[in-house]
Amino acid sequence: MKNFDINEDPHRRYNPLINEWVLVSPHRSKRPWQGQNETVTSDALPEYDPTCYLCPGNVRANGMVNPDYENSFVFENDFAALKQEEIAFEENRNETFFRAKPERGISRVVCFSPKHNLTLPEMPVEAIENIIHTWQKEYTDLGNVDYINHVQIFENKGSVMGCSNPHPHGQIWAQSSLPTEVEKTQNNLKTYFDTHNKTLLEDYVKEELKLDERIVIENEHFVALVPFWAIWPYETIIVSKRNVSKITDFTETEVTDFAVILKQLTTKYDNLFETSFPYSSGIHQSPTDGKLHPEWHFHMHFYPPLLRSATIKKFMVGYEMMGESQRDITAEKSAAILRGLSITHYKNK
Amino acid sequence: MKNFDINEDPHRRYNPLINEWVLVSPHRSKRPWQGQNETVTSDALPEYDPTCYLCPGNVRANGMVNPDYENSFVFENDFAALKQEEIAFEENRNETFFRAKPERGISRVVCFSPKHNLTLPEMPVEAIENIIHTWQKEYTDLGNVDYINHVQIFENKGSVMGCSNPHPHGQIWAQSSLPTEVEKTQNNLKTYFDTHNKTLLEDYVKEELKLDERIVIENEHFVALVPFWAIWPYETIIVSKRNVSKITDFTETEVTDFAVILKQLTTKYDNLFETSFPYSSGIHQSPTDGKLHPEWHFHMHFYPPLLRSATIKKFMVGYEMMGESQRDITAEKSAAILRGLSITHYKNK
Ligand SMILES: O=P(O)(O)O[C@H]1O[C@H](CO)[C@@H](O)[C@H](O)[C@H]1O
Ligand SMILES: O=P(O)(O)O[C@H]1O[C@H](CO)[C@@H](O)[C@H](O)[C@H]1O
Repeated sequence: MKNFDINEDPHRRYNPLINEWVLVSPHRSKRPWQGQNETVTSDALPEYDPTCYLCPGNVRANGMVNPDYENSFVFENDFAALKQEEIAFEENRNETFFRAKPERGISRVVCFSPKHNLTLPEMPVEAIENIIHTWQKEYTDLGNVDYINHVQIFENKGSVMGCSNPHPHGQIWAQSSLPTEVEKTQNNLKTYFDTHNKTLLEDYVKEELKLDERIVIENEHFVALVPFWAIWPYETIIVSKRNVSKITDFTETEVTDFAVILKQLTTKYDNLFETSFPYSSGIHQSPTDGKLHPEWHFHMHFYPPLLRSATIKKFMVGYEMMGESQRDITAEKSAAILRGLSITHYKNK
Repeated sequence: MKNFDINEDPHRRYNPLINEWVLVSPHRSKRPWQGQNETVTSDALPEYDPTCYLCPGNVRANGMVNPDYENSFVFENDFAALKQEEIAFEENRNETFFRAKPERGISRVVCFSPKHNLTLPEMPVEAIENIIHTWQKEYTDLGNVDYINHVQIFENKGSVMGCSNPHPHGQIWAQSSLPTEVEKTQNNLKTYFDTHNKTLLEDYVKEELKLDERIVIENEHFVALVPFWAIWPYETIIVSKRNVSKITDFTETEVTDFAVILKQLTTKYDNLFETSFPYSSGIHQSPTDGKLHPEWHFHMHFYPPLLRSATIKKFMVGYEMMGESQRDITAEKSAAILRGLSITHYKNK
């Protein structure tokens, strides 16, 4: 009988953050593609677009005028999924089939730059530091609202990721409950911390650095790597080396190192297919419920959909929805490809 | 303080099948859309396409020739994600970060019809009965393979769902492990069954029929409804009224009723935006591990991405990937819309 070769044979890998598996089919990466092709967004965007609702000085759908901002600019989402209003309600915990409860929250938009055509990889490090400072401020302000127990910072980049405006921006949805994925993660982080008295990610990053098979970028305070259990073809995670539970705990040197790794990782992404690389990214960190959360360890997920070119993405559909996530290219191969790419943006070459 | 109104106020709903929540924002359904539009596939397909690798008599990528089939036709997937080969392997259960194990399986393609342009809603009921008989045969044959413990029957329909060929077909991925989503469901079904000595879905469907708020179609043996906890805008589930754990337990009358409800539901879907409606569907039923599974109750999920028109889909991206699924239109409203649609296909009007 043939011995298991993780680089060749179909196998499943376990994700200890959410207690789920992914099916990996390394032999399948050569299958031909006859399906849908994505449209590539033209790179020729103007620095200012008079029709963009995020550009400085422009009027938004609700009649508000954006200030003439110079760095980042934060405002309440005009079509927020959450509302601040308090709603009276009696929970019936015995209900099995029709459990519902009102959810309070605040949802904000964070413009990363006044320039309509400037995405993270093309920004100077100082501008990214400024975004990190904005995230810190929002995490603090929103987290201090009495009914807010979780602050989700995220970015949808590219029309293929449902982003309706190329102006560089992210969002923050802050709410009273822990969202499903965060709660799953917290449960697993807590179990690990209670057993080992160290965070799961502290130990994981140490092991990854030792093995050096999935590391994409390393600097003094941060590591970007393709997790062993990645589901998206070029999925990565940025983890702080120091065991820090939230973005507000970073020293100024750490802020700089985080900005540098963000710039370098997104530059490599753009260089991969020489296109403005789409992804959804998001920060997972301590809830803001006023309790201590030593089990939480700051990390940022990048879930990019592209698979083989600027126009061919991975579809997480039938089998993935009914069964489990599936990937062809291995995490090790993706990491090697990303590692090999330049940290100079292709447009500047 | 305002009292909770489930039709108006942001809230979360609980999914007892997988123990996860969904964020519902009913007030948000009117937000404008400036993002990506999907391309509508032209309806003018020929009955036979000489370049299609699924049409009768044509040659596939690997050189095999399709027979001149008359009903459904099943073959091994030419680019299978799973392989049948047995792989030697020693599991290390103490491993936390790098757990992987080989996975054996068989992956097949099921052509639903020799006609290149005939999808489920436009097929005669007898042709759909024939597909159900094919699924029964495959479930039995694959389930009888000693190392196969789970048989996942599914369909990806439409290019937006990663389907690379409009020829009507589904797939079956059979494997030795229970996939993540199935295992989650099984755990919850089992807990319910152990407590109530009835299946969760038997009780749920009874309650839904009593309330009559989310039912889309009902016939003697089946119900199609928008589950209370649906995440996709027009998500539905078909459940057998009788507590049957697998497709092979259906009587011939049940096969007919299942075929009828499949035809009617997919016809309503096509009528919604007068387009060939994309979705991923899949059957959840008893594993084939040789054990008794009285907790399992046959059901079929439909996850369709379209939101507001034939070209505007819902994106499950940043917040949904990091936090939890989110929807705007309520399950009750979607059910009312689907219920109101004709069961005569728009092309035949
Ligand atoms: O097998 P197909 O149709 O080529 O591929 C499609 O369905 C598979 C199973 O859901 C997915 O893994 C692929 O990403 C998708 O493109
Ligand atoms: O808020 P936006 O950018 O209009 O919308 C986008 O991001 C949201 C949060 O991930 C999603 O719910 C929407 O489906 C998506 O289109």
